[in-house]
Amino acid sequence: MFLLPQTNQSQFSDVLPIFSIVGRHLRLYKNCHSSFETGLSAVLKLYRFIAIPEIQQVGKMSGKVILHYVNGRGRMESIRWLLTVAEVEFDEMYLTTHEQLQKLISDGELMFQQVPMVEIDGMKLVQTKAILKYIAEKYNLHGKDLKERVMIDMYSEGLMDLMEMIMIAPFSQDPKPKLDNVQTKAKQRYLPVFEKALTGPVHLVGGKISCADVLLLECTLMLEEKFTGILADFPNIKAFQGRMIQIPAINRFLQPGSKRKPPPDENYVKMVMKVFNLGSLPF
Amino acid sequence: MFLLPQTNQSQFSDVLPIFSIVGRHLRLYKNCHSSFETGLSAVLKLYRFIAIPEIQQVGKMSGKVILHYVNGRGRMESIRWLLTVAEVEFDEMYLTTHEQLQKLISDGELMFQQVPMVEIDGMKLVQTKAILKYIAEKYNLHGKDLKERVMIDMYSEGLMDLMEMIMIAPFSQDPKPKLDNVQTKAKQRYLPVFEKALTGPVHLVGGKISCADVLLLECTLMLEEKFTGILADFPNIKAFQGRMIQIPAINRFLQPGSKRKPPPDENYVKMVMKVFNLGSLPF
Repeated sequence: MFLLPQTNQSQFSDVLPIFSIVGRHLRLYKNCHSSFETGLSAVLKLYRFIAIPEIQQVGKMSGKVILHYVNGRGRMESIRWLLTVAEVEFDEMYLTTHEQLQKLISDGELMFQQVPMVEIDGMKLVQTKAILKYIAEKYNLHGKDLKERVMIDMYSEGLMDLMEMIMIAPFSQDPKPKLDNVQTKAKQRYLPVFEKALTGPVHLVGGKISCADVLLLECTLMLEEKFTGILADFPNIKAFQGRMIQIPAINRFLQPGSKRKPPPDENYVKMVMKVFNLGSLPF
Repeated sequence: MFLLPQTNQSQFSDVLPIFSIVGRHLRLYKNCHSSFETGLSAVLKLYRFIAIPEIQQVGKMSGKVILHYVNGRGRMESIRWLLTVAEVEFDEMYLTTHEQLQKLISDGELMFQQVPMVEIDGMKLVQTKAILKYIAEKYNLHGKDLKERVMIDMYSEGLMDLMEMIMIAPFSQDPKPKLDNVQTKAKQRYLPVFEKALTGPVHLVGGKISCADVLLLECTLMLEEKFTGILADFPNIKAFQGRMIQIPAINRFLQPGSKRKPPPDENYVKMVMKVFNLGSLPF
């Protein structure tokens, strides 16, 4: 830890840009700079009585990420997963009434009048895929070059298609044929691709963890909840799962009491229909 | 133009890597290197009788992009638009029967057994959004930093949501309420966002053309086909359209006989249902 002599505001001018830069990059380099973060935090506490905009800015930039959505998986769960793997702490603001959603809309907080919305780095981001790509790129989970990125994007888009099918099933008058279709497509169209891609490599792309790995883990756990033993014919994917859940951040996320959401039940469906003002099941 | 002395193959070894590198980046720097391309092309012709794998590779890498889809807009049209603006030439292979689709699948050409598929840079890319991002990033239509990219992605995802709604309407038993919904959402949810974003700026993000601009142009032209005069209350968007269609590549694309596809008609719907083996209208 470093200390500055107590002095008047103008004498800080040489030091403040350092705070600002550190603040901006603190979350990115969180793991390797944790002791520095502690030091910075102490300095900020020491001088918190001085109203210096740059220091306030540092405080703001290192503020928590805030997720705005209902208290359930839906379109936010993949974002929760990716933030977890990036070791980014986040808070959640749950919408429980339609009026709360309407207020966000009338306040102009939601670009296309939809959630998920994520407050991060002074922005209010919408559109699930745009948010996922921002997090993936910022936290180095999106490949090192154009060819790696397009592979990660292809895998990710496929996995999100499959998860979307599972996600909408509880909002269907007749979920059974929809889930049968998911199971068939998972076994014939999607899982064989990942089983083949993981013949040998530890990760899907580029020898290191990417958002495609995170989505594959989320998706396969979701499939197993619905279709016990579905991975029996996919030993590489099962081994991949085993490796991924040993990552400490993921392991904690899988424990009870974490920010991971449970599978949707009847109450969740009712709550979603209330918040989004749906008169009948939409699918 | 530069010439090499005619000599035996081994003496090329120092020069060939240059060809390879140039070949790989030729399309990227096409505009500013056109005279160099001519020179390279002449050298390649001169030595074409020599079977050197690296030279064949150069030929392959500078080969045309090939799109695999049906002869209609669907999910490929935005890719055609983006390639056009990037001034990348492309060929198209149209699927006209279900057997052709089945053959692509059984040959393992389609990662998730779906089209669009685009052959580019020695890869067979699938998933519309992954393909669009690859083209956007490669041809510098995807912003200069993380914050520009997330804005471009948010705008793009919103526009693609809206275009998807228009795209599926002809495949509905009852398109009228679906199109009424599109019109309402366009006017109340989507167009106001872009009208505001274009108060002042010439482009949506970062002061230069990006894939969000291209998608906005495509989307607004598509809206005007369905709902004449829909842009009457959106003068900034109308002015933006006016500027965009003056770009020479776009202007050519809008002329009769270009690779732009017409709005879907009954024959298109029948053909799509045949190729994808749909028993009834799916929406």
